[in-house]
Amino acid sequence: MSITFAVLGSGGWGTAVACLLAQHPNHRVRLWSAHPEHAALLDAARENTRLLPGVKLPDALRVEFDAAEAVAGADCWVSAVPTAYLRATLHRFSGLCRPDVPVVSLTKGLEVATFRRPSEIICDVLGTERVAVLSGPSHAEEVARGMPTSLAVAAPDGGLAMWVQQRFGTDRFRVYTNNDLVGVELAGALKNVIGIAAGVCDGLGFGDNAKAAMLTRGLVEMTRFGVAHGAEPATFSGLTGIGDLMTTCFSPHGRNRRVGYRLGKGEPLAEVLAGPQVAEGVLTAKSVHERVVRSGIEAPIMTGVYEVLHNGKPPLAAVQDLMSRSLKHERG
Amino acid sequence: MSITFAVLGSGGWGTAVACLLAQHPNHRVRLWSAHPEHAALLDAARENTRLLPGVKLPDALRVEFDAAEAVAGADCWVSAVPTAYLRATLHRFSGLCRPDVPVVSLTKGLEVATFRRPSEIICDVLGTERVAVLSGPSHAEEVARGMPTSLAVAAPDGGLAMWVQQRFGTDRFRVYTNNDLVGVELAGALKNVIGIAAGVCDGLGFGDNAKAAMLTRGLVEMTRFGVAHGAEPATFSGLTGIGDLMTTCFSPHGRNRRVGYRLGKGEPLAEVLAGPQVAEGVLTAKSVHERVVRSGIEAPIMTGVYEVLHNGKPPLAAVQDLMSRSLKHERG
Repeated sequence: MSITFAVLGSGGWGTAVACLLAQHPNHRVRLWSAHPEHAALLDAARENTRLLPGVKLPDALRVEFDAAEAVAGADCWVSAVPTAYLRATLHRFSGLCRPDVPVVSLTKGLEVATFRRPSEIICDVLGTERVAVLSGPSHAEEVARGMPTSLAVAAPDGGLAMWVQQRFGTDRFRVYTNNDLVGVELAGALKNVIGIAAGVCDGLGFGDNAKAAMLTRGLVEMTRFGVAHGAEPATFSGLTGIGDLMTTCFSPHGRNRRVGYRLGKGEPLAEVLAGPQVAEGVLTAKSVHERVVRSGIEAPIMTGVYEVLHNGKPPLAAVQDLMSRSLKHERG
Repeated sequence: MSITFAVLGSGGWGTAVACLLAQHPNHRVRLWSAHPEHAALLDAARENTRLLPGVKLPDALRVEFDAAEAVAGADCWVSAVPTAYLRATLHRFSGLCRPDVPVVSLTKGLEVATFRRPSEIICDVLGTERVAVLSGPSHAEEVARGMPTSLAVAAPDGGLAMWVQQRFGTDRFRVYTNNDLVGVELAGALKNVIGIAAGVCDGLGFGDNAKAAMLTRGLVEMTRFGVAHGAEPATFSGLTGIGDLMTTCFSPHGRNRRVGYRLGKGEPLAEVLAGPQVAEGVLTAKSVHERVVRSGIEAPIMTGVYEVLHNGKPPLAAVQDLMSRSLKHERG
């Protein structure tokens, strides 16, 4: 029996997952783009020439720009919309979601005004509870080219997580189940903030020793923040924590790392932040900082990133402040 | 009051730490080389031209090749001898160690025949109990050039750990104390085995997603193995665990990663393992494998590295075996 997926959002990651799903002979996939002209280009070229050049869209993938057409009769929705546009975009689908249809979220971020996680925004707007989150170290470019990738899926309903594991998984795209939905989503959001810090280190030319120390302490902050918000600490040592943090901080593909790198190199903030798509970590840093202040969590690296991005602090001064903190015990 | 350090072992890391210690105006440092001809070259050039080219030895550093001269009146010994030579080398100093003189170990490995950790070998041979271990993400090249670095020091005697923190630490070489000596040493040894696996991934061209997943699962194996041998799990999320693992696996300096990389590229095993200094991970893989088999610990990555290095298994087959393991829950 064939299964129909509606992938909402035709960015690099949405397109890569849509292509992956369409490889299965029993799958049909609709890839929905918010912009009719982008949908037309994508369909004409059968390729996302800007974000995934050279990757052909499979025949089983249909490009859509009409919301109702995209999800009509779909057995599973996949949400691949950046956090900043997620709520508004989902409102276009709010009357269309049947309660039995699962929604798989691919978004990594936190809503600035509300601190809501993507799966919560999905529940809010679509009125569904059948939500799963798929996350982990997965640059779209590599997935689209069939390079081996491992991720985790978390859902309040364990049966749904296993269904996603089987339906999305291939021999080159391995999906592990995980019980900690809150941790998986917070790790996916917070790693982007640390990714910006890693980029600053690189831009300043600080070397591998300093960067590894920064990431290690960054992981401590991520875990501390996550646990304070209901996550399990072990999640931060897993694929969606340290795993995703590594690709974010070391891969040349990383958009968040690049923001930090350019700042570290001395490019003006306004120039780095200009452009159509802001890196997720820029907004997450803002969202997280408010919580850090309010709850008194010790998070000097995430605070430093916030200060650089939103308060005009010079990157070198931020790193020097971090390094002049008093020495103490490692678990401190 | 001046303090005299005797650094035993003039490899890259021993030399870098000796230079670091000699920067302090109240420190005198003797750097002992096991080979008189190497000592002579080092002293003549005032530079380790092969391993740390361009880094001048400070005036407060004296090169020695006579064991008794090197340690006479020293207030602290620093052991920087590779594991394979550690026991035999220390025997040359066994009558010379006063019980009140602390010994700081810089060695990352495990003795193949005995599974003893470097600090245990030091206690065995020198008959001292005042041992501390200094470990973390610290490529010698970067430390010698004054690039920012953070490490951890662990000792059974917390006062000794704090003394090392103060004596070795500078504003660019930050030392955190840690209570878990066993964990710090096991993490330092095991990360080299995973570093070889990371290199194989790179050599085979598997991309950042696969490498991050491999390292994440490798960290799980390191932690599992460490805990079974008395370590605290949190250590593996710290500087000496994930921190050091990151530099080992991502830095171009990494000797263990390079072994795996060359094997992944298809170079014959014998050629890769030839040369005067074998990467620590090659022997550690052997030492660990015996324990894995004996105690039934699940460690497929470390087992794969052992099979490639010591049983002639082709690297691609080892990685494919890893990737065809049945899918399961992330904590499994």
